[in-house]
Amino acid sequence: MGKFCFGVDIGGTSVKMGMFSEDGSLIKKWEIKTSKETALEDVAASVKEHLTDEYPAENCAGIGIDVPGPVVSGGIVLECVNLGWSRTDVKGEMERLCGLPTFVGNDADVAALGEMWQGGGKGYANQVMITLGTGVGGGVILGGKILDGSNGAGGEIGHMVVNYEETDVCGCGKRGCLEQYASATGIVRLARKAIEAGAETCLKNDETLSAKAVLDAAKAGDPLGLKVLDQLGWYLAVACANIAQVVDPQIFVIGGGVSAAGTVIIDAIEKYYDTYVMHSLKGKPFILATLGNDAGIYGCAGMVFSD
Amino acid sequence: MGKFCFGVDIGGTSVKMGMFSEDGSLIKKWEIKTSKETALEDVAASVKEHLTDEYPAENCAGIGIDVPGPVVSGGIVLECVNLGWSRTDVKGEMERLCGLPTFVGNDADVAALGEMWQGGGKGYANQVMITLGTGVGGGVILGGKILDGSNGAGGEIGHMVVNYEETDVCGCGKRGCLEQYASATGIVRLARKAIEAGAETCLKNDETLSAKAVLDAAKAGDPLGLKVLDQLGWYLAVACANIAQVVDPQIFVIGGGVSAAGTVIIDAIEKYYDTYVMHSLKGKPFILATLGNDAGIYGCAGMVFSD
Repeated sequence: MGKFCFGVDIGGTSVKMGMFSEDGSLIKKWEIKTSKETALEDVAASVKEHLTDEYPAENCAGIGIDVPGPVVSGGIVLECVNLGWSRTDVKGEMERLCGLPTFVGNDADVAALGEMWQGGGKGYANQVMITLGTGVGGGVILGGKILDGSNGAGGEIGHMVVNYEETDVCGCGKRGCLEQYASATGIVRLARKAIEAGAETCLKNDETLSAKAVLDAAKAGDPLGLKVLDQLGWYLAVACANIAQVVDPQIFVIGGGVSAAGTVIIDAIEKYYDTYVMHSLKGKPFILATLGNDAGIYGCAGMVFSD
Repeated sequence: MGKFCFGVDIGGTSVKMGMFSEDGSLIKKWEIKTSKETALEDVAASVKEHLTDEYPAENCAGIGIDVPGPVVSGGIVLECVNLGWSRTDVKGEMERLCGLPTFVGNDADVAALGEMWQGGGKGYANQVMITLGTGVGGGVILGGKILDGSNGAGGEIGHMVVNYEETDVCGCGKRGCLEQYASATGIVRLARKAIEAGAETCLKNDETLSAKAVLDAAKAGDPLGLKVLDQLGWYLAVACANIAQVVDPQIFVIGGGVSAAGTVIIDAIEKYYDTYVMHSLKGKPFILATLGNDAGIYGCAGMVFSD
């Protein structure tokens, strides 16, 4: 039989786990609860339970793990605020616990690798993924590998500054970050501001305003929804334009919960992107991610098999 | 004896050439005139003249060539406006003419590699160089290699948009590019605008205003000079901040004729850089380039020896 591996996506509340064969097919997936104190021991125990006669350790190519924090080469996690971790040698610890080669990455970077390996970006070795979720994450893939950067901050696209006039403060302490406009939180913030300023909208009495409601309103032709979608597109376009001027990827992949709105997001970005790039960078494809919440475990497996 | 190689920096008016030993020392350098029609044949003839009993072809590791235009992998030059070239297989042509392995790069990218190999950025495999000359060029080096990008537009930092309100048009056809503020031309433009607006300055009657004159005035405490230097620093800082958010280099190297002004340029950038990056990217070193006009030939040699 061929090789297989484990993909382990460690989040703040649950750990998503999967077993993959070398051709990229998902053999099995499951979840365990995240314990901040014993996460790695719990993962190791779950890995061992899944080593069977059918899937023996000697056929296992390794374990890929992603975490919500900066990772530097050598598999060292610098910190994970959500997990309460300080500097942790995740690679060393997992290899000690399981005796299997372990590969470690940042969650947004690894999701990008997953989309490259088996998702919307399949077939493109050079791509940039932007994950529009509660925040905005990013991953830069060059030559089929994650660009982690010297401080584990490669692809931290959500904190590119796109508005030098912003007065509100981003979660990172700066002002005018892409995340303040293009995340689910940012979309709600833009909508609330417009409502407070008296904009005409069907959302006026929506107490629990969500990004989905705003984008659904846009699709239904609501003027405020359309305005926020247009702003979202502009901010993403100028960020992607400046990214293209630096790394010139083959494609951009747009994922995360907000991207579930579909092609309206792509259209909103493409409306402005060409205005802000030089000639040879115009017309770069923007593609929707396809793996959803499984991008992490796919990317973890991709790290193992692309080594 | 050890290996040696040729470094060939093709510019619009002259071709700079050098012979280097593997340890990075320059054995000899010379120039030939650029002929748009016969540039590659002329270079090949000059290379062959320098193959001697002391430096025989069998000890030559190859030829590195840079050109002022976009280059994609495989050594294909997409175009060189200054040379009147359309798509040209520079690698194939030189290998046919000389029978030596040839490596081809964009001039700004290769200058960055030169500074990494033997200049201001020596010892850092991950760095971004910004060349402040007539225009603004850039080169991104990751893992010791040039990031050329899928259209040869990797590191085209001069055309990142840093001012969304600009009304003047950049040479590239866009508005608000870094080059409009941080090049020699851009510095003169900013100074002229301020003078027209009535700014107080010793440069008021300087008919042939140069970037050097503006920066010298700043060093002497001239209010307009200081204002332009401050603007230059801000624009470079916001561009470098967004670059750092994407590729997280170890250092930035600042070169080109404008950087001859020295540490005042570094100070002007560092004044604003930290404001626009997330915590883990603050305090990145900005370093002056040291190779001057030889950065190109050094980088060409670096391409050969880093292969």
